[in-house]
Amino acid sequence: MTLTNGYEQSDREEQLHILNLPSLEAAAKKIIPTGGFGYIYGGAEDEWTLKANTQAFNHVQIVPRALANIDHPDLSTEIFGLHLDTPVMMAPAAAQGLAHAKGEVDTAKGVAAVGGLMAQSTYSSTSIADTAAAGDGAPQFFQLYMSKDWTFNASLLDEAKRAGVKAIILTVDATVDGYREEDIVNNFQFPIPMANLEKFANGDGKGQGIGEIYAAAAQKISPDDVRRIADYTDLPVIVKGIQSPADALRAIGAGAAGIYVSNHGGRQLNGGPASFDVLADIAKAVNHQVPIIFDSGVRRGSHVFKALAAGADLVALARPVIYGLALGGAQGVQSVFEALDHELAITMQLAGTKTIEDVKHAPLTHFRYDD
Amino acid sequence: MTLTNGYEQSDREEQLHILNLPSLEAAAKKIIPTGGFGYIYGGAEDEWTLKANTQAFNHVQIVPRALANIDHPDLSTEIFGLHLDTPVMMAPAAAQGLAHAKGEVDTAKGVAAVGGLMAQSTYSSTSIADTAAAGDGAPQFFQLYMSKDWTFNASLLDEAKRAGVKAIILTVDATVDGYREEDIVNNFQFPIPMANLEKFANGDGKGQGIGEIYAAAAQKISPDDVRRIADYTDLPVIVKGIQSPADALRAIGAGAAGIYVSNHGGRQLNGGPASFDVLADIAKAVNHQVPIIFDSGVRRGSHVFKALAAGADLVALARPVIYGLALGGAQGVQSVFEALDHELAITMQLAGTKTIEDVKHAPLTHFRYDD
Amino acid sequence: MTLTNGYEQSDREEQLHILNLPSLEAAAKKIIPTGGFGYIYGGAEDEWTLKANTQAFNHVQIVPRALANIDHPDLSTEIFGLHLDTPVMMAPAAAQGLAHAKGEVDTAKGVAAVGGLMAQSTYSSTSIADTAAAGDGAPQFFQLYMSKDWTFNASLLDEAKRAGVKAIILTVDATVDGYREEDIVNNFQFPIPMANLEKFANGDGKGQGIGEIYAAAAQKISPDDVRRIADYTDLPVIVKGIQSPADALRAIGAGAAGIYVSNHGGRQLNGGPASFDVLADIAKAVNHQVPIIFDSGVRRGSHVFKALAAGADLVALARPVIYGLALGGAQGVQSVFEALDHELAITMQLAGTKTIEDVKHAPLTHFRYDD
Amino acid sequence: MTLTNGYEQSDREEQLHILNLPSLEAAAKKIIPTGGFGYIYGGAEDEWTLKANTQAFNHVQIVPRALANIDHPDLSTEIFGLHLDTPVMMAPAAAQGLAHAKGEVDTAKGVAAVGGLMAQSTYSSTSIADTAAAGDGAPQFFQLYMSKDWTFNASLLDEAKRAGVKAIILTVDATVDGYREEDIVNNFQFPIPMANLEKFANGDGKGQGIGEIYAAAAQKISPDDVRRIADYTDLPVIVKGIQSPADALRAIGAGAAGIYVSNHGGRQLNGGPASFDVLADIAKAVNHQVPIIFDSGVRRGSHVFKALAAGADLVALARPVIYGLALGGAQGVQSVFEALDHELAITMQLAGTKTIEDVKHAPLTHFRYDD
Repeated sequence: MTLTNGYEQSDREEQLHILNLPSLEAAAKKIIPTGGFGYIYGGAEDEWTLKANTQAFNHVQIVPRALANIDHPDLSTEIFGLHLDTPVMMAPAAAQGLAHAKGEVDTAKGVAAVGGLMAQSTYSSTSIADTAAAGDGAPQFFQLYMSKDWTFNASLLDEAKRAGVKAIILTVDATVDGYREEDIVNNFQFPIPMANLEKFANGDGKGQGIGEIYAAAAQKISPDDVRRIADYTDLPVIVKGIQSPADALRAIGAGAAGIYVSNHGGRQLNGGPASFDVLADIAKAVNHQVPIIFDSGVRRGSHVFKALAAGADLVALARPVIYGLALGGAQGVQSVFEALDHELAITMQLAGTKTIEDVKHAPLTHFRYDD
Repeated sequence: MTLTNGYEQSDREEQLHILNLPSLEAAAKKIIPTGGFGYIYGGAEDEWTLKANTQAFNHVQIVPRALANIDHPDLSTEIFGLHLDTPVMMAPAAAQGLAHAKGEVDTAKGVAAVGGLMAQSTYSSTSIADTAAAGDGAPQFFQLYMSKDWTFNASLLDEAKRAGVKAIILTVDATVDGYREEDIVNNFQFPIPMANLEKFANGDGKGQGIGEIYAAAAQKISPDDVRRIADYTDLPVIVKGIQSPADALRAIGAGAAGIYVSNHGGRQLNGGPASFDVLADIAKAVNHQVPIIFDSGVRRGSHVFKALAAGADLVALARPVIYGLALGGAQGVQSVFEALDHELAITMQLAGTKTIEDVKHAPLTHFRYDD
Repeated sequence: MTLTNGYEQSDREEQLHILNLPSLEAAAKKIIPTGGFGYIYGGAEDEWTLKANTQAFNHVQIVPRALANIDHPDLSTEIFGLHLDTPVMMAPAAAQGLAHAKGEVDTAKGVAAVGGLMAQSTYSSTSIADTAAAGDGAPQFFQLYMSKDWTFNASLLDEAKRAGVKAIILTVDATVDGYREEDIVNNFQFPIPMANLEKFANGDGKGQGIGEIYAAAAQKISPDDVRRIADYTDLPVIVKGIQSPADALRAIGAGAAGIYVSNHGGRQLNGGPASFDVLADIAKAVNHQVPIIFDSGVRRGSHVFKALAAGADLVALARPVIYGLALGGAQGVQSVFEALDHELAITMQLAGTKTIEDVKHAPLTHFRYDD
Repeated sequence: MTLTNGYEQSDREEQLHILNLPSLEAAAKKIIPTGGFGYIYGGAEDEWTLKANTQAFNHVQIVPRALANIDHPDLSTEIFGLHLDTPVMMAPAAAQGLAHAKGEVDTAKGVAAVGGLMAQSTYSSTSIADTAAAGDGAPQFFQLYMSKDWTFNASLLDEAKRAGVKAIILTVDATVDGYREEDIVNNFQFPIPMANLEKFANGDGKGQGIGEIYAAAAQKISPDDVRRIADYTDLPVIVKGIQSPADALRAIGAGAAGIYVSNHGGRQLNGGPASFDVLADIAKAVNHQVPIIFDSGVRRGSHVFKALAAGADLVALARPVIYGLALGGAQGVQSVFEALDHELAITMQLAGTKTIEDVKHAPLTHFRYDD
């Protein structure tokens, strides 16, 4: 255990035996301090959207293909010119130092170990360069919370580019902080600095609540911002936080090289739909013009399968990975992805799908369950 | 604590730190005497409609608009020629002296403090003039429970007009008292007089049950009554308790200047639909001929947003405000509206809507949640 | 308390203060011996249909009519040439001696006191003549469980006719006893004789289980039986246990003078629909050729209203009445009907319906509740 | 109690008084060791499909036919040229020695005693010949988990043919073991050898987990395998694990003489539909070209009725039978089938269906239950 500014950070480094991802929550709750855990765990307002995110996967069912004559399903996939060993990626998530002393550095190591894709958050506990270096050549994306101050944005983008990230994820669903009651109950303030703020901003985030952090961020984000970032970085810009076909098309029109369907894990707007419920319609509208990343509510191999079958090209998640980080550091992160990949591989084999491409073409069905 | 006729009234005056409106119920239950609390809290019969009122907001979801290029949402609105700082108003609610020694006077102060609209009830604990004076120039409406005795009605309407109210709300869904089991269990009788009865009627309500109070009220209410009140007062008459498009049109035909969609918070007819479920169809039928006020079940910023997006021009609520009144007097009332406005502002920003007019044009969607 | 063959029968005679009918169950459970209570209470198999019966009333909602200009709703109705003060009747129910020493005699008195209609069961604890006499001129029907032995049937029908019953209810949904687990768990055997068996059959039912009782009854019932009974008695024959439009029409074709929509309170076939769910379609098919009686699941005034609005001409119930019988004898029965009529009257007034005919023409609506 | 390799096997032989099949689970849990019980009981992943299997029967309702003029329903049926006294058969289930020392031998006896059909599993605890002999002339099928080693397959098929089985069931939904958490939690390894492995394979299964067992099985199963087995055995081949109309038709095209609609009791692919939900569509597509067997979730007489009415020709189940085996050996198995047949007979009589053929033509209906 590492004590940082009075905050007890886990420093475990060990492989985990994971029964399933949902079970990690209770285990992690025991070792992450209350405020940090509440920040990671909580959703907005009455958390209807948070809960709906995971329940929504039960709205459709996998139609298995029998006699498919396949074995050894292959989880690898290509996206944005990158080869990945798994279609499950690490979503950008802030302040992973809340869960572990090594923070995003360990996450990046764990993700790299499974051949996955890591996304860094603007509000990372560790620096862009350190996190990138930890990835040891594995691909990473950088997620931008636009600041009102373009100089700050430019500095981050420069640094990210220097660090070799392959794409920029522009988050557009967080122009103000969601009404997260956990943080209010805990009167939560970040006990640990955020590396990018420390380096490029006036304050480092320490001692601030998420509301204060977001206050420095841009509340007004327009299609022009997508193009500005694309032009500035010459990197693909993926717009994160899309929940409707119309917005997906608008983002593409503004130069988005990818669409990231997400409701921020139910942490921002409450009362919007479950992210999975909107995925199929968005995918239909996007019609393969650009790749689609999906997150919010993914906890099971069958969820990953359903998201891919509903139109996603990559599937992201964060909370369970951060719990794994707390419980086992880089090895814990690796264990989480391996557990999910294991469930996915079984689902693929039993559904009669050998490749991720097969999964993307697999049929889903819908029966009414109203008893 | 103030002891009135043996009934313990709160006399707290303090700002509240409100996590959310639903949490006020348990807190208020501790300080409002059982009978009074039961009267405020209870619904009719098996309370299906009461419960459905709040659940119904989950039947539709907000479609957020990303890249909307907005900040600082503006909650102000215009209605009946009045400027209001918030689209959330105080619903007319009887006997607020049950919750606080100052009763409606404190409610009016709290509402005025947030630039909102106050509606007085016929069965108020405080007088029309006192409540109006407490509003200190802020707009108020007066709600009429028609009596069988037109002289009584005329006296009230005269008094309300003298007090400067801007409109009359004619309640039509309470021609007999709903079957409220809480009141029966508690053998509830009003321990405190009702100011308007005290002044203009034979009895003052004290020591009577709600059934006895309503017995003096008109059971037969017809479209002619709408016109009679409009003619008598020369004020806009808003018909409260509409639950179908047909009735909305009939009320307008009878001279209604506004439609108030409500099922009396599930306190009158049980087995009718959730009020939110009927709102959109009524709004479509009304088609902007007159403004629409909506209440029943509103507890969250996302509920207010959905009601506005479904066709309401103003959104009202009562129980949580009365709980806030018990817990903090005028300041408590103010805190309740501020808390709800805060949630609404976040919802508006995250949904990409800058003005109340934007919210009224925001799309809603519907996904099946049947697991 | 009366001890009959070792079975403790209530002999209470008192008016009840009834909060609502569902609350009677727990009270009655305390004074009815386990076996008797289980027989009254239980449903078939996993009781899905039993539970669905009451829940189904929530599938539709009452559309209140505002500004209806009515007061003092009138619950009286005419059916089969009879004037009744309430549209709620006593369903035929066996062995009411399980609940009270006076059995059906007290039930008949209580029903007569509210101006209602009493239906006697073949398996009554008291004799046709005694029960009829107790009704003191109020109308009664006689329900027939056809025996394999026509002489038995004829004797009963003769006796019923002599006693002045106005119609015969032929039960067709009980050609074998439903799989009621309560009776199995309690190893239930009737502790008290059945008056009609005592008089006309070989055994009196005492010491037999319901399976043995039913074994003497006809398992094969055909349309010819309807006509045979009608011809024999020259009384209207009402076919009880109809659950589909096709069967309703077939029964009418066979000479039925009335259709009784019922699934025997979920005591016979489990896995069939809730009785209320099939009512509207049956009423549409019957199209007023003959009157419709409805039972199964009715507990609230709003349920009675919905059943009438969905097509019933009379609404019946049994369990809550039998609980009232146990708790207060004839006065208890009267209290149950008065409580339900009170709720119905409130519902009628608030829905804007003055007469039962108005209720029958009142609109119902359906909203999806899927959260 | 018999101790085998340290595993405590029941050796009870007694008739059971069964209230209902679901109640057997708790009773059996007390006498089957934890690991064995978990293996029998558990489903895959989050067990959504497992739970949905039984709930799905509530999605449709039986439309009873009144005045049907029938009695004494006849449960006998003909299929594959066999006469059976009940349409309920024993599903192939592995390792019944986990429940009872006599294993499949006792199951076969119990099934024969009710005139039913027994299916042997490849992974039986007892040998094909012993199990067949125990059936004493009653018909049996043999279920094949194809091995990667055709010699093994051929040996089993030869042995099965010698033993006189009437058909081969080829399981195609288990090309890898489902993710069953119970087995992981219990670190379950088979404590008892599997007779067919003992005789024909290198290892006998003892000390192995289900994953290791399946590892020797074929992961690639194609339509050609259906024909190969049919050609080799000259017996009807029934393809088990079909969940879509397309697969049913493909299997028939490959020579399947029967379709077995099953999701392996929710033990293999999780996230697929409830088996009952897909049955009607498959039956429509198959259109009586070949018979259909159905399993997964059957626990009640009404379930059997609904499955037959939805298109099944035979209905299978396993878990409750294995619980009965543990609790009472051959007599316990017999009791389970008798209890289910008893419920089915009541359902048939009350639904107005005299024969299994009548049941297959009985209408089902669907009402929305969304409260």
